[in-house]
Amino acid sequence: MQDITNESGKLSINLKALADNYRTFQSITPNHCDVAGVIKANAYGLGATEVFKTLKALNCPQFFVATLDEALTLRKNDSDTPIAVLGGLFNGAEDAYMQSNIVPVLNSPFEIEKWAEMAKRSDKKLPTIIHFDTAMNRLGLSTEETHALLDDVSALDGLDVQLIMSHFACADEKDHELTEEQANRFAKIAKHFPHAKKSLANSPGLFSSDTYHYDLVRPGYALYGGNPTPHANNPMKTVVSLKVRILQIREAKKGDSIGYAASHTFEKDTRTATVALGYADGFLRSLSGKAKLYYDGTPCEVLGRVSMDLTSINIDHIPHAKPGDWVEILGDNQNVDELADTCGTIGYEILTNLGQRYKRQYIDI
Amino acid sequence: MQDITNESGKLSINLKALADNYRTFQSITPNHCDVAGVIKANAYGLGATEVFKTLKALNCPQFFVATLDEALTLRKNDSDTPIAVLGGLFNGAEDAYMQSNIVPVLNSPFEIEKWAEMAKRSDKKLPTIIHFDTAMNRLGLSTEETHALLDDVSALDGLDVQLIMSHFACADEKDHELTEEQANRFAKIAKHFPHAKKSLANSPGLFSSDTYHYDLVRPGYALYGGNPTPHANNPMKTVVSLKVRILQIREAKKGDSIGYAASHTFEKDTRTATVALGYADGFLRSLSGKAKLYYDGTPCEVLGRVSMDLTSINIDHIPHAKPGDWVEILGDNQNVDELADTCGTIGYEILTNLGQRYKRQYIDI
Repeated sequence: MQDITNESGKLSINLKALADNYRTFQSITPNHCDVAGVIKANAYGLGATEVFKTLKALNCPQFFVATLDEALTLRKNDSDTPIAVLGGLFNGAEDAYMQSNIVPVLNSPFEIEKWAEMAKRSDKKLPTIIHFDTAMNRLGLSTEETHALLDDVSALDGLDVQLIMSHFACADEKDHELTEEQANRFAKIAKHFPHAKKSLANSPGLFSSDTYHYDLVRPGYALYGGNPTPHANNPMKTVVSLKVRILQIREAKKGDSIGYAASHTFEKDTRTATVALGYADGFLRSLSGKAKLYYDGTPCEVLGRVSMDLTSINIDHIPHAKPGDWVEILGDNQNVDELADTCGTIGYEILTNLGQRYKRQYIDI
Repeated sequence: MQDITNESGKLSINLKALADNYRTFQSITPNHCDVAGVIKANAYGLGATEVFKTLKALNCPQFFVATLDEALTLRKNDSDTPIAVLGGLFNGAEDAYMQSNIVPVLNSPFEIEKWAEMAKRSDKKLPTIIHFDTAMNRLGLSTEETHALLDDVSALDGLDVQLIMSHFACADEKDHELTEEQANRFAKIAKHFPHAKKSLANSPGLFSSDTYHYDLVRPGYALYGGNPTPHANNPMKTVVSLKVRILQIREAKKGDSIGYAASHTFEKDTRTATVALGYADGFLRSLSGKAKLYYDGTPCEVLGRVSMDLTSINIDHIPHAKPGDWVEILGDNQNVDELADTCGTIGYEILTNLGQRYKRQYIDI
């Protein structure tokens, strides 16, 4: 790796691997099935603008973000690629959506009503996406609201329902009974919309069963290299690599403690390294005393508490390490799922919190 | 609060309260003692540029950041305010420091050597800050290195040692024996530098004992409203307030589950709200099922798992809540320490990870 003297860390994002992951989704779904670009939360922390551009070059036909602000950021350099906002429609935000050619995913009868009013006001058949909740109880039309809508579809007058969707709660757990139940509920709803496209599968759903593919799959986590099949080997290519530099090498004495709260005491003299990585960089404080970083492929355990800007590791077995050398947090030796496992969270949280403080280096498609 | 239709969240930073906190530090330290501006990690996540400007207006004489990049960002609009980099000096970075008029905190004999070489090359007496480690085992000269330097100070030739410093490991624990021991060690070192200013106290150190004040205190957390005296009431003013909007109201049925992994099951029919807040916004996933948000002062418990962009709360006791309404995460009803407590972390981690996704609103001094 090139040694840039003044940098303390480097976040490398491999857009070529990301593109390969996208092609993998295309290859395992039928020809009529599209693959959406899920680029909410700044493309899971990796840079929405760059990922948007990469997937557009692969003819990705539909993008999803979480908030209108995220969509507007993408609209700055693109006026017509389909972008939908999963968070739905605030009362009074209809004009902002219309003017920017952005589509809200409608999550409730109230949002449908507001969007239909906008259609009437503008005298246009507005592109429409409806989210039916099938078990998440988070966003989307409830069972009662769904039945009411299907009994009387006049609420949809003036709307061009192009897509209906739902979202899995437990698809990452192998053969979870709720997944099949959600799929059955969605299948029943889908029959009422013969002309709309259907979308059900997130990353784990996409890899669980062909019957979940429908017309559009929405893999997010897997696109960024996360394992969509936690019970099996990861079929995705690694997209993210994060390395930071050693600031200082130290020789701790037997009986010394290290870090805040003096939470780790040395049982013998130990060579340690302090690296430019802290919880302000998204290296969760719950990784204290648990995670491993890698020096040239060799694991080094984190010693004591992770602090805001600094983390200490054991390098007693690496006598040649010196200040300025790089250690790996994510990459060939450790992926996001593995790092997340060490502190009981999920790789999604690791990805979306990766520090703003590091220079980002994009490996282009 | 003003209702901005398209926004899903709002992070408000009260620079007036921050300035009051700074004045509090001035009022409880002697006249000869300066108060540094610790603005590393983007001023604990709140915006280094704005905090820098605010503290400069209060004649703050010395700033600290963690990395050279952070210092260079501040130098874009300011050529001469003293800024020091706690992370120290990478081999070869001396020129970058010199040219930008930024001072590295020297953490090792090697860094002292490099800085002295730079002084010789440039034929200037370079401003110098030395960090002596007194127990953290993280950065700074070790006991052996300290003794060696004090025995032979020729390594400091050409350097103008303006400040020496150390850092407490356990000052937030009342009367921790290590704190007094560190203070004693530092006092012994200090005697060898009669002409340099001395700095020892971080936020909790500043409030623990007058004897830790010396010539410069370095409160970080307390400046941003965190409690520097965890065993007592918080003497600081609240600086941060974070509110997000309700996206949807739902009526969950007895026996329904909610969120990923269906981890919460309802024992009775329950009115819930889904709000625009997730772990991608720095609302840690470990807050799942534990934290409380506040609707107009009334606590509402988080239900099930926090997801990337969404969190569900119980609003069964608030029949009038509606989509678009605001709920408080941090502010008058809940401060960073309280929120951190609910998931076993510290407020520092909450602050430094506060989402990039929200509009920041600064209340000016």
